Amino acid sequence: MLRQSCEPQMQTFVESGQLIRAFLPVGASRLGPLRARGPCRSGAPCRAKPEGALGGNTGGVADSAPDIEGMLRLLSGRADRREGARAGRVYLVGTGPGDPGLLTMRAVELMRLADVVLYDRLVSNDILQLVNPGARMVYVGKQRGFHTRTQDQIQELLEQFADSGSTVLRLKGGDPYVFGRGGEEVDFLREKGITVHCVPGITAASGIAAELGIPLTHRGVATSVRFLTGHSREGGQEELDETIAKSVDPKATLVVYMGLQTMPCLAAKLVEGGLDARTPSVAVRFSLEIVSSEDVCLLVFCRCCCSL
Amino acid sequence: MLRQSCEPQMQTFVESGQLIRAFLPVGASRLGPLRARGPCRSGAPCRAKPEGALGGNTGGVADSAPDIEGMLRLLSGRADRREGARAGRVYLVGTGPGDPGLLTMRAVELMRLADVVLYDRLVSNDILQLVNPGARMVYVGKQRGFHTRTQDQIQELLEQFADSGSTVLRLKGGDPYVFGRGGEEVDFLREKGITVHCVPGITAASGIAAELGIPLTHRGVATSVRFLTGHSREGGQEELDETIAKSVDPKATLVVYMGLQTMPCLAAKLVEGGLDARTPSVAVRFSLEIVSSEDVCLLVFCRCCCSL
Repeated sequence: MLRQSCEPQMQTFVESGQLIRAFLPVGASRLGPLRARGPCRSGAPCRAKPEGALGGNTGGVADSAPDIEGMLRLLSGRADRREGARAGRVYLVGTGPGDPGLLTMRAVELMRLADVVLYDRLVSNDILQLVNPGARMVYVGKQRGFHTRTQDQIQELLEQFADSGSTVLRLKGGDPYVFGRGGEEVDFLREKGITVHCVPGITAASGIAAELGIPLTHRGVATSVRFLTGHSREGGQEELDETIAKSVDPKATLVVYMGLQTMPCLAAKLVEGGLDARTPSVAVRFSLEIVSSEDVCLLVFCRCCCSL
Repeated sequence: MLRQSCEPQMQTFVESGQLIRAFLPVGASRLGPLRARGPCRSGAPCRAKPEGALGGNTGGVADSAPDIEGMLRLLSGRADRREGARAGRVYLVGTGPGDPGLLTMRAVELMRLADVVLYDRLVSNDILQLVNPGARMVYVGKQRGFHTRTQDQIQELLEQFADSGSTVLRLKGGDPYVFGRGGEEVDFLREKGITVHCVPGITAASGIAAELGIPLTHRGVATSVRFLTGHSREGGQEELDETIAKSVDPKATLVVYMGLQTMPCLAAKLVEGGLDARTPSVAVRFSLEIVSSEDVCLLVFCRCCCSL
């Protein structure tokens, strides 16, 4: 029997006045954690600095342009020494919700081959540990109010490293093409004539759904699922309102990425727009210390869920 | 520069009078194929029969209830002989679009541990080859007009194998919680008190998006993405119309699973509903010979795509 009402931790936002913030220890299942074990204390994922390589800490690269120059010289030299030195290529790789067990085989294979790795704030420590120790690590994480690099700078770095003849890995949390800005990077690099491939990752919605027992679709109950961002950038409130109006569907599961900041407004507008106020919902904050809740809180308005 | 018009193979259905059917050799990229290599000729994925194990062909199990009985006896005996025989457990595992490289590490780990594997029609040969040779293979694929097992029978089999003390793997194409009926199986098993875990997989939309260079979301262009099924079962046309009406959003990417059969009606209704008739779109049929195009054709109405 399918339960269309949900477990206690998934009360409706009407009963509680607002969405429940289920600050779950994401990944408590026996299949292993979705969160990184041993979160570091710095503002970025940390990993032991491989001998002879630049480290991946915030301080390692964020304010060290000379290091980048040095890396480029080193890498160019290495490429030239190779028999039949070839042009570099870039792989945009989704690393999923943070649990190494949810990495794809291809992601792991590429992490072993990479010369340079540019990684985001949402790539967990445990995942970074799988990168081959000889790879140059460049942290390019973005966080509200603190960008180690702008998107343009990241794209330029990718181009420079590819031009040096390196195999460049761009590691992203989740899936590069689901709120990951992968399209911008792929388009930029292809415009420059650089070979780029995208490797999909498990997006947060799928990871959380499996973890919490929330089918994103379910016959006769949820015939579709919609992912949207609660983090409206260009259009601001107006764009958000328009999106919300389109998101009220009694037969759909709604997943809001980056939704904590706009959650109160979003929840109220969904109900105004006609969403049943008793719709079970849950807000999940990834419990990585390296992450600010605003950016990774995932709201799920679900039509059904399995017993947990 | 982002291209909001698409490549030739992605013409709009208005120019062509209907959606282009891009029968792509899915996975021609240098990263390796998304499709199974060496498709078999039978109605189901084939794999070399491991010595002493039942094969995974249609004929292997579909019409061989006695074999199931034999397997259960064998497995029960094996479980009892184990020191501290324990209750079995079930793992619902998404295997992604078909390319072993897009399997998660956890999926591979579980395929090596399984005592019994129940697998769908959409699980590719190359993936089945990774299952440990000692595992009992049970094909439970469903296809329009030909079900080797009904959903109820599949659930009962999962229960029986779990009761025999086995580690049971339920392999599904894509993601179990995205049009995979995972919710029904998890709910059934949990109601029976059987331990069940779900391992997410790369859903077809993510696999195809990465392959074709179609960002499912893109800043300022596609602020959300919606997955829906074109395969309306309960509500029929009325339900489909209602869903379509909710799916017209100039700021969203729309992905229709199992959409080939309803494609002409769907496309017309989307335009009637206000979708810009110039919206780039592509229809992808997974080129696995084992698969009927109706069931796996994926339609993507995208706001943007990267140069391929």
